[in-house]
Amino acid sequence: MSTLRRDPIVGRWVVNTDKLLPLSTTIEKLGKIEDFPKCPLCKGSEEFTPPEIFAIRPNNSKPNTPGWEVRVIPNFTAAMIVEGKLNRRAQLMYDMMDSIGAHELVIETPEHYPNMADLPEDQFAKVFTAYRERISDLKKDKRLRNIVIYKTYGKRGLAEALPHTHSHILATPITPKNIKEQYMGGRNYFLYKERCVYCDIVRQEMSQEERIVSENDKFIAICPFASRYSHEVWILPKTHCSDFERHPKEEMPYLASMLKEILLRIKALFDDPPYNLVFFNGPNRDGRPNYWETIDKDYHWHIEIMPTSTKPEGFEWATGFYINKTTPETAAKRLREVKFQ
Amino acid sequence: MSTLRRDPIVGRWVVNTDKLLPLSTTIEKLGKIEDFPKCPLCKGSEEFTPPEIFAIRPNNSKPNTPGWEVRVIPNFTAAMIVEGKLNRRAQLMYDMMDSIGAHELVIETPEHYPNMADLPEDQFAKVFTAYRERISDLKKDKRLRNIVIYKTYGKRGLAEALPHTHSHILATPITPKNIKEQYMGGRNYFLYKERCVYCDIVRQEMSQEERIVSENDKFIAICPFASRYSHEVWILPKTHCSDFERHPKEEMPYLASMLKEILLRIKALFDDPPYNLVFFNGPNRDGRPNYWETIDKDYHWHIEIMPTSTKPEGFEWATGFYINKTTPETAAKRLREVKFQ
Repeated sequence: MSTLRRDPIVGRWVVNTDKLLPLSTTIEKLGKIEDFPKCPLCKGSEEFTPPEIFAIRPNNSKPNTPGWEVRVIPNFTAAMIVEGKLNRRAQLMYDMMDSIGAHELVIETPEHYPNMADLPEDQFAKVFTAYRERISDLKKDKRLRNIVIYKTYGKRGLAEALPHTHSHILATPITPKNIKEQYMGGRNYFLYKERCVYCDIVRQEMSQEERIVSENDKFIAICPFASRYSHEVWILPKTHCSDFERHPKEEMPYLASMLKEILLRIKALFDDPPYNLVFFNGPNRDGRPNYWETIDKDYHWHIEIMPTSTKPEGFEWATGFYINKTTPETAAKRLREVKFQ
Repeated sequence: MSTLRRDPIVGRWVVNTDKLLPLSTTIEKLGKIEDFPKCPLCKGSEEFTPPEIFAIRPNNSKPNTPGWEVRVIPNFTAAMIVEGKLNRRAQLMYDMMDSIGAHELVIETPEHYPNMADLPEDQFAKVFTAYRERISDLKKDKRLRNIVIYKTYGKRGLAEALPHTHSHILATPITPKNIKEQYMGGRNYFLYKERCVYCDIVRQEMSQEERIVSENDKFIAICPFASRYSHEVWILPKTHCSDFERHPKEEMPYLASMLKEILLRIKALFDDPPYNLVFFNGPNRDGRPNYWETIDKDYHWHIEIMPTSTKPEGFEWATGFYINKTTPETAAKRLREVKFQ
């Protein structure tokens, strides 16, 4: 059984397990995604995956058959399962609970594209629809405190074994540590200034210009002032909104255009490098409504993208002290000037 | 010029630079350590390195000549320099300062050993002497708030370019984020319980036994309850002490024996894997004596070792939410039972 365990010093919750649960009969039989006879995320491979949770099917085709445009499935193996109770408990001085949660994969296209950057722009908008539907649905479950969407592209981890563009949705019964720090940072700033810190960043970057990579009517892409990673890029909505799934739907085409452009710029600048991408989003208020009373005002959803041409050293994970060898001013200039299509 | 910049949301300080400063004439000429005619850390290569800061020279040989047993030099290229003033300042809403600090390399042996694990045990004790001397000296500088010692072994970063066992000493004018969280976690626990959280961990692990890897009279090695990484190991002194350089000198041979044993166990279990190692130590009180008034009681220096056979994904860096696929109970059992020499 997987458990969620709390570090007694810094309060970080970690999943610990000795065995991931196989959630498709094929993975149970084969053990490894690498041994599948064909790409299990392509159209026509529906039998290999765990049964779908959500799909965009314009012609009302049956679940778990071809005919979908975006498809959401549980991950092939699970460190957390959605059934059961949390069973919060102590082990002498330590705190733990059962590893309740959800880990889903969003298959972004039925065609075998490896890099999201190459999807047609209107396909991005369909992917966003799937994200919004899944987040809204998962937030109905009071046990799930946080839902985060991320993707990894390139030669590492599951992205290497499954080279068909997909994203992860991870719903956890705790707030991941770095996300909680963003919420608390936003809250403290708001208490002091009565303004959203991300709104202030958007305004300051628009006035200073040197860290802007790109801008349209609704979104801005910047290399942040205190970048941890070389060529780190954040995409922020210009209008304040705490939650991606509640962001005005009519702005989604602007986000599709912006995200595709940024991924293409990164692809062009570094010859198709690996990257990580995270949608940082507001928490599920339902579990602790009083605690999150002010979050609508003091948090601002956004996307962070880290090209991983240079990887952080172990020292950086361990201490949280980063040495970034490209200033955001230089990185933004390069990303602005690169030729791409 | 390098700058230290503060993330306006979570308060993390990051070094940002476009150019590292070359600190040896050879690196200035050649540009890359890979192009040196021979290993610049071996005895007889003293001319290639920046001038030494400290060395153990039992026969009183001259600085920057052979005859040393452990040698400390500035890093070949610097993101931070020790000369100058901090110049704390604002850039509109952002905070920054000049990147003052020190980055030194401890050359752990004049012979060409790649892995610290293979050093003779008495050489470990000499390396610890160099660490203690350098920490004590750097702590005299009130601008330097924190001194951390770490090493990276295996095919990554500087460890790949310089395959001669060495460690880093990094002295910073701010407290790195994750280290500050340890200090604050220890402080809060002490305020509540009037006991050191690390002392409580040592006692509980000794009574439960299942997460112990090894133990001697003065030190204990455990796989921590909420391990982030597979086969993560912590070495803690059994007697409370906040600072490595103030730890009773007569216990250093026990630490030498323990650290060598753990590195050999990790080497044997995974066939010589890469690893990261960090000495977490108490802060420099001199800069802010009131702020650190209770640190002697509520912090406990220790070593954390992370074998990097499985690397954290970008998602884990970004969110601080780790999924560890080996429980510490299983990891400790394997590390206890592995045959090594």
